[in-house]
Amino acid sequence: MFNAARITRFQKEQTPFYFYDTGLLQQTVDACRQASEKHAFHVHYALKANVNNELLRIIRDAGFGADCVSGGEVAKALENGFSADQVVFAGVGKTDQEINFALDADIFCFNVESVQELEVIDDLARKRNKQAQIALRINPNVNANTHEYITTGLEENKFGINSWEFNTVIEKLKTLQHIRCIGLHFHIGSQITDDNAFKSLCVKVNEFRRWFADRGIYFKVLNVGGGLGVDYHQPDRQPVVDFASYFSIFDQFLEREPGQEVHFELGRALVAQCGSLITRVLYIKKGINTNFAVVDAGMTELIRPALYHAYHRIENISRPEEGNTQKYDVVGPICESSDCFGKEVELPETHRGDLLAIRTAGAYGEVMTSSYNLRPKIRPLFL
Amino acid sequence: MFNAARITRFQKEQTPFYFYDTGLLQQTVDACRQASEKHAFHVHYALKANVNNELLRIIRDAGFGADCVSGGEVAKALENGFSADQVVFAGVGKTDQEINFALDADIFCFNVESVQELEVIDDLARKRNKQAQIALRINPNVNANTHEYITTGLEENKFGINSWEFNTVIEKLKTLQHIRCIGLHFHIGSQITDDNAFKSLCVKVNEFRRWFADRGIYFKVLNVGGGLGVDYHQPDRQPVVDFASYFSIFDQFLEREPGQEVHFELGRALVAQCGSLITRVLYIKKGINTNFAVVDAGMTELIRPALYHAYHRIENISRPEEGNTQKYDVVGPICESSDCFGKEVELPETHRGDLLAIRTAGAYGEVMTSSYNLRPKIRPLFL
Repeated sequence: MFNAARITRFQKEQTPFYFYDTGLLQQTVDACRQASEKHAFHVHYALKANVNNELLRIIRDAGFGADCVSGGEVAKALENGFSADQVVFAGVGKTDQEINFALDADIFCFNVESVQELEVIDDLARKRNKQAQIALRINPNVNANTHEYITTGLEENKFGINSWEFNTVIEKLKTLQHIRCIGLHFHIGSQITDDNAFKSLCVKVNEFRRWFADRGIYFKVLNVGGGLGVDYHQPDRQPVVDFASYFSIFDQFLEREPGQEVHFELGRALVAQCGSLITRVLYIKKGINTNFAVVDAGMTELIRPALYHAYHRIENISRPEEGNTQKYDVVGPICESSDCFGKEVELPETHRGDLLAIRTAGAYGEVMTSSYNLRPKIRPLFL
Repeated sequence: MFNAARITRFQKEQTPFYFYDTGLLQQTVDACRQASEKHAFHVHYALKANVNNELLRIIRDAGFGADCVSGGEVAKALENGFSADQVVFAGVGKTDQEINFALDADIFCFNVESVQELEVIDDLARKRNKQAQIALRINPNVNANTHEYITTGLEENKFGINSWEFNTVIEKLKTLQHIRCIGLHFHIGSQITDDNAFKSLCVKVNEFRRWFADRGIYFKVLNVGGGLGVDYHQPDRQPVVDFASYFSIFDQFLEREPGQEVHFELGRALVAQCGSLITRVLYIKKGINTNFAVVDAGMTELIRPALYHAYHRIENISRPEEGNTQKYDVVGPICESSDCFGKEVELPETHRGDLLAIRTAGAYGEVMTSSYNLRPKIRPLFL
């Protein structure tokens, strides 16, 4: 990823910046498209991972839809040429303004997270004389066969509709004339690297689907969400995620009714590996037990380590990897102890002026930047 | 803070927004000024807490200086009329560009965090034919009397110069012609509510000052940093911090040489209580064990709960406090489990449309916002 020509180019750039390898993104998108087409699966790109127009163009051109979690993301998807009938609007806290905007745009589907949201969307659609397509986001922590009044073993979180509310939902849907329920939606989490989690999801989706079918309710769409993980520790080992295996699991374990579509929301798996945060070493501080490499990027440019204690591989791309290494705490300029990209990172002997690459930063990197400490907005560099 | 007139006003505003009570800020600033003047102490406002121009004006008019942690903050302070000779530039990762900007502006002092930074500032000042005033930021975790080759009990962090480097620093300062060391700088942490921590700091500063004095080195300035905490749990109990007690501790315990100035950096203590994040309830989700109040502000507008598990008092300002309360998890619209302002928050029975105030949000609130999920920029409202 970091050949001599690129490093020479980087040295001329003002740091820090986000570097995006658009060739790798294209490969990733192509692999995802081929693997999903094999099973006639539909892929929506989760814009929350990265909203750079250049990346969106490549993803849109692959024919993917857009999974949006705000009115701003719906607008961004439409501005970038995603077809409205491939735009999904998810999220627990949709405002009236955002819903109205999405109604006016005739998006494909609202993923609805609560009974009250059903009423609100119906009411707003009624005022516009429209019918909104919705999918029910199901909180799948609960076994669908034991759905009522479960008081233990239920990990309640803010997302989705719990199965003990299904009867209420079914009654409600009968009375609400301005929404049409076309799907079930699930999302079990992020950065999943164990295939068994997806197999378990399929088993649960099958149960939920059957529960509704037993009551005469059929869905055009099963949206199984995203969550496919990437390798943060060895980003070069398999830079393009194994989409074929991923989709095969669903093909094998997910029961479908005739004509039923299966939809996926992928963000990180598409864009994480193509992005790196490139930063310059400002100071080396020699400690007794620790060396510090103080760099010119901080938690303001990549907050995942501070917010989630997330690991990102860090490489000194100005120095060859062979030879002795030393351990450095790689820290940023922000006046916060949490502003640390990695502790005891093994690097070749590192000096002021060296360029470091903080890898696998294409997802949830640039989108989460802030101007805390009045930091300037970071630029992207596409090569 | 939330009288009927204000709440009526709030109901007309698009939410979420930051509300700032400029009257309370004025009271706070006045109290701080009076208490510090009594001891001829100098106060610098730490811009990183909040950089709203309206608030900066009130603080500047009190005669306070500016404590800045980036070139952007130095520029902001100067643009807002802070006098350059009252501007301090601190931080572990100053870039050449930022240092040059501050040199050109003839700021009062650079708080230097490493030996290498001394060399860099000297070099850049030399190229501009200037002499930069600097203070040594000392990492006071170490007892100054046992300063060499301490290998245990030393909590190394990225901030400051460790005492075992002092001899190197002294030798270095003799050779560097374009910096003039005028002070010692300390900062022991944030949100300190135990007076004993400040007493301990005074004891340590006394030791360090004496250590240098024993070697014939005297400082014009002792900068003892900030860290004075506020009451997040009962913001109305003492909305104006007890500055008199705070400064009295230093007056009592900090030894000073004749003519020696004592400088303070206060951020949170000045601006935290005057600010609240005002947000509207979008949906109520009834759980079995938990009710959720989904609001239209999220971690994008106030990240402290997600980032530091910080507590902020939450009040339903649309409903009287008397009567039965219920427990709600107050959550935002962002697609992250960490997007939660408080768990099991006791509120009057709360409904869609109600306004909630998330209190004590004037510091490290608006400055840390992001546009993650393509959220629009939040507005401030000054009353």
